[in-house]
Amino acid sequence: MQPSDKALVPFVSVDHMMQLIHRVGLPEMIRRIADAIEDDFRRWESFDKTPRVAAHSPVGVIELMPTANDTQYAFKYVNGHPKNTAEGLQTVTAFGLLADVDTGYPVLLSEMTMLTALRTAAMSALVAKHLAPKGADTMAMIGNGAQAEFQSIAMQTICGITTVRLYDNDPDATRKCATNLTGTGLTVVPCATAEDAIEGAQILTTCTADKQYATILTDNMVGSGVHINAIGGDCPGKTELAEAILHRSSIFVEYPPQTRVEGEIQQLDPDHPVTELWTVFSGAHPGRRDAREITLFDSVGFAIEDFSALRVVHALTVETGLNLPLDLLADPDNPRDLYGMLMRAG
Amino acid sequence: MQPSDKALVPFVSVDHMMQLIHRVGLPEMIRRIADAIEDDFRRWESFDKTPRVAAHSPVGVIELMPTANDTQYAFKYVNGHPKNTAEGLQTVTAFGLLADVDTGYPVLLSEMTMLTALRTAAMSALVAKHLAPKGADTMAMIGNGAQAEFQSIAMQTICGITTVRLYDNDPDATRKCATNLTGTGLTVVPCATAEDAIEGAQILTTCTADKQYATILTDNMVGSGVHINAIGGDCPGKTELAEAILHRSSIFVEYPPQTRVEGEIQQLDPDHPVTELWTVFSGAHPGRRDAREITLFDSVGFAIEDFSALRVVHALTVETGLNLPLDLLADPDNPRDLYGMLMRAG
Repeated sequence: MQPSDKALVPFVSVDHMMQLIHRVGLPEMIRRIADAIEDDFRRWESFDKTPRVAAHSPVGVIELMPTANDTQYAFKYVNGHPKNTAEGLQTVTAFGLLADVDTGYPVLLSEMTMLTALRTAAMSALVAKHLAPKGADTMAMIGNGAQAEFQSIAMQTICGITTVRLYDNDPDATRKCATNLTGTGLTVVPCATAEDAIEGAQILTTCTADKQYATILTDNMVGSGVHINAIGGDCPGKTELAEAILHRSSIFVEYPPQTRVEGEIQQLDPDHPVTELWTVFSGAHPGRRDAREITLFDSVGFAIEDFSALRVVHALTVETGLNLPLDLLADPDNPRDLYGMLMRAG
Repeated sequence: MQPSDKALVPFVSVDHMMQLIHRVGLPEMIRRIADAIEDDFRRWESFDKTPRVAAHSPVGVIELMPTANDTQYAFKYVNGHPKNTAEGLQTVTAFGLLADVDTGYPVLLSEMTMLTALRTAAMSALVAKHLAPKGADTMAMIGNGAQAEFQSIAMQTICGITTVRLYDNDPDATRKCATNLTGTGLTVVPCATAEDAIEGAQILTTCTADKQYATILTDNMVGSGVHINAIGGDCPGKTELAEAILHRSSIFVEYPPQTRVEGEIQQLDPDHPVTELWTVFSGAHPGRRDAREITLFDSVGFAIEDFSALRVVHALTVETGLNLPLDLLADPDNPRDLYGMLMRAG
């Protein structure tokens, strides 16, 4: 039996996603996602917002991240299991959905393991565009896992950095990252220590995966005037920065009710002042105030970023036809005759 | 590029689901789901539970319903848009996912429009098995939409009812339902009014779809000794029963934090006594106490029911191979080399 058009939801597989990215070009794709995020954050007050819904187990977390505005609804399913890597699996896998608020019908189902890497990098670079010191040309990239290359290329594309200084406690990760970045135009400097990596860098990115309180950056490693892009601390009990750094920094966050629980600021009092990034993007807050200020993006990842990324992919899918129509929704001729549809299929 | 096994998630389309149901037989499928729900509700305390996460709009709602125990995680996406029917669309569409808690990897993606109809009917019949008066043989089915036939067959299969008395304010719906039930062995009596439908019925099922406070059953329609199976009142502002009925009834619910907001009992004080069904299934609560008691299942649908239904479908999918492997997860050879995987696909 052939399902009707209404029953079919376009599905973007991992392979489709990679084809889409190559067709558009990775830097351009990151730029489009960053632009979409900036637009959507400027419309912040038109979104339904809720902290993600997490199911924690001793070895990881599975989360749902929904959001909606008047016309579109999106959610992402994402897991975080640091021990997966040792078993040959991804730490983070994800997929997501975009739906029409008026009918509740899904309009796109998409892989988001790849897309999350792009949107996380796009968000980091978008924030750095607003907060990093003028003329920043060097980023320290601490943690050279699956995010590292995307972060580097996003910072190159959107902020104009020319050099990345790589460090990971596993030298194989650094070698992988350095090899992958060959030919991107970036000057790549593998470093033997985190202290070495931050040398001369105006942007310090931390992206490590341990599910425990860690101190990737100690207080004395952070000089004045830098921008810290702290990505790895993103669930309760998982942080990367010495608390003292937080007290010296102007802290910028996506959505406080979520970041207070998951971000670096879980180390601070619940009323410690933070600035919401949407107010920076909208121009209501000036962002960086002076050259000596330490700015900190306490990144945990918020549902609107996925919403924005899915919007970009949806438009590209319509444009390119790169998708597999999936028979996901039952669509009987008479909507009240689900049973009759079942019986006729027998 | 051929994705590896780890990247593939079995997808059960609507067509696969219908084939599965026909292979097993609808009554047997409903029975297996009811058994799985009963098992899972008996293990109630081993589940992570949360009220569903709803995004309301003026015309409908989109919900996510997650739950997990130590080994498996499930969630369902479901919308409710009563006005859809007039546009030739389903009021309710749904799909769901089962995942492995240890890795966070999905193990099944499935349509759930059809499956939700089965699990809702299975839950209603399971509850009626415990609460309906002894020897109940007749059900009034008020609201003859997409759920009606499934409810009737579930009550026949699990509770042994022999007669259904149908009423809907749209006679076409009643005609559709009566025609569909031909050959099931049920005696089907189309009725011109709701009052007529409840005549001689020991089980009163209400399943209407208006998103507003409605009074499908008035107080004087409900005599002593009946079991009310109230399905349609399932979101804030949507109820079906006169409040006076609630005060005369012993009220049984799935998960109080959700039912207090969405069910018939949203009409009552937040501390009005209710009994949790898992205590009935486990034997801790006796259920119906005497022949004159009015028992009321204030059904709103809970995530564990979907978890149970997905478990049943997953087992059948493994057994029959009826699924489409979906390239949903990025699975690079080196888990930290997502970027390398992307570049090699270019």
